[in-house]
Amino acid sequence: MTYLENSGVSSNTSIHLARRPSGLPVAADWRRETHDIPEPGPGEFLVRITMISLDPAMRGWLDDRPSYLPPVAIDEVMRAGAVGEVVISSHPRFKVGDYVLGTFGVQEYAISGGTGVTLIDPKLGTPSMYLGVLGMTGMTAYFGFFEYGRPRSGDTVVVSAAAGAVGSIVGQLAKINGCRTIGLAGGPAKCGYVVDELGFDAAIDYQNESLRESFQQHCPTGVDIYFDNVGGEILNTALGHLAMHARIVICGAISQYNAESSTPGPSNYLALLVRRGTMQGFLVFDHADEYPLARKRLAQWVKEGKIIAPETIVPGKVADFHDVFLRLFNGENNGKLILDIRAS
Amino acid sequence: MTYLENSGVSSNTSIHLARRPSGLPVAADWRRETHDIPEPGPGEFLVRITMISLDPAMRGWLDDRPSYLPPVAIDEVMRAGAVGEVVISSHPRFKVGDYVLGTFGVQEYAISGGTGVTLIDPKLGTPSMYLGVLGMTGMTAYFGFFEYGRPRSGDTVVVSAAAGAVGSIVGQLAKINGCRTIGLAGGPAKCGYVVDELGFDAAIDYQNESLRESFQQHCPTGVDIYFDNVGGEILNTALGHLAMHARIVICGAISQYNAESSTPGPSNYLALLVRRGTMQGFLVFDHADEYPLARKRLAQWVKEGKIIAPETIVPGKVADFHDVFLRLFNGENNGKLILDIRAS
Repeated sequence: MTYLENSGVSSNTSIHLARRPSGLPVAADWRRETHDIPEPGPGEFLVRITMISLDPAMRGWLDDRPSYLPPVAIDEVMRAGAVGEVVISSHPRFKVGDYVLGTFGVQEYAISGGTGVTLIDPKLGTPSMYLGVLGMTGMTAYFGFFEYGRPRSGDTVVVSAAAGAVGSIVGQLAKINGCRTIGLAGGPAKCGYVVDELGFDAAIDYQNESLRESFQQHCPTGVDIYFDNVGGEILNTALGHLAMHARIVICGAISQYNAESSTPGPSNYLALLVRRGTMQGFLVFDHADEYPLARKRLAQWVKEGKIIAPETIVPGKVADFHDVFLRLFNGENNGKLILDIRAS
Repeated sequence: MTYLENSGVSSNTSIHLARRPSGLPVAADWRRETHDIPEPGPGEFLVRITMISLDPAMRGWLDDRPSYLPPVAIDEVMRAGAVGEVVISSHPRFKVGDYVLGTFGVQEYAISGGTGVTLIDPKLGTPSMYLGVLGMTGMTAYFGFFEYGRPRSGDTVVVSAAAGAVGSIVGQLAKINGCRTIGLAGGPAKCGYVVDELGFDAAIDYQNESLRESFQQHCPTGVDIYFDNVGGEILNTALGHLAMHARIVICGAISQYNAESSTPGPSNYLALLVRRGTMQGFLVFDHADEYPLARKRLAQWVKEGKIIAPETIVPGKVADFHDVFLRLFNGENNGKLILDIRAS
């Protein structure tokens, strides 16, 4: 137990789900707890968490309904992807001093047996990149775009939440593949960022432009791939502008995650028939076997400067989780949103 | 001009679109005209139409909006698939006495240059079968089910409008392929027909049962293939009961064709993400190159008694078109609906 003795640290602060949110989560939906750091058992290791991933999908995990993962239970530590340093280990593969990526939760320390944990290779990227472009975010963009979007050079690709973590990567992958790429974002600043920094061919400001007119202007031959992170009226408008044999990739629907009642479906779905289109949902977990290859390619593109991996890293404590999480839903951040608890 | 002289026939009665319907068509939307039968030119032939196909898709052709075919123009002869006998011909391939299938329209006589016309092979089936199981109806069922449904033995297949022309064939194709097959139909008589005559494993009476409970009862492991002819609440309920990697085939949406305002989309579409599902629209025309093979296979299955090809053949005149067409929308008919004008 050298680490605990030497560091003088003995307690772990964690954020627990106190009750299920109705609509946008409020502070009282969470509870902070502090407990002694448990001792890792044989074959286990202790991780000092340094950075916590904040993702729109986390909102879905709070609702008590069947989904691709069981909901976070009341009183359970909030589920979250995180990176950290191994500080105690009797695991054969994860050594003290290694940095690791795993679903460690919103807390300062986590014990793991190694299942689902990825060793961070500093030659590929930094720990924060393992939450972003080399982590679930990058994997989601990569498999969603290539496997389900099935791009061909010259395709017109439209991406919603284009300044967001996944959307920013998808748009750049589309450019690498010779596609004409249009991003949707909220407000002139974000739209400027999408075009000037991320290299999209054009941006549509969904807060200030007519969706229909802007789609007509920027997609005169129709949309070949629509990569959807938002749902709602933007999805419906995209359906109204499909090219023949278009592919709609359903990655998420952030516009609906905090809805308190059932939201309307895409009334234009019959365009799938007229345009012989496909609307397909996917989950990145199904491609876990291929993560190592995707990670290498993405790392290479970052090194070559073909992809930039935007990050919004917020220093704080685990107690700041709620405030930082809300930034996902008020449109404040660009790229990957991360809570950095190293200084706490 | 021997035929015209011998038969004593000189005029052709045809049904024209007088104005665009709003909602369910009414009699005043059509106009009957009688003109001299035109003389076929060199390389053309004259068809005496014997039977006219009535299809839900015809309703879509009446609306003035972009679709997979241009709308029927005001004053134009109503577009329709039909079969008939060649009575005059200078065409090298279509001889007097041949029966042919083509988009001849709602009229008694049609002139054709042969484009898009299929010679009826009496060894494969009767002319009415060339409108149904061996025509667009059967092709739609065959390609929709096999190409887009991608069935595997043991799949749970749900078909809406199961007593209808396309649905009745899809369900039987599913049975041939070892699928568990559930049909939706309106009322106990149709549901009995679907199970007793067509051989579906079960039927759901959407007019008298709770959709949700019936889906749960009949699809306890979820729906692998949902073949949709109706849209609306049935599509939405199917989305709520998908098995993993489910395929939703969008063939039509009869519940919406006569809607006078925009109808709600399927609010459960995010199930595509949770269940990694695909929702795909298709048009049978894209598979025209493969019609001959499909027609042979379907004819063989009919001969072997593996498929029955239900038909509702209504004797009448072209002037009866409107009344017979409405039977598609009031749920009166089983199987393929045909207007038989031979005696007129």
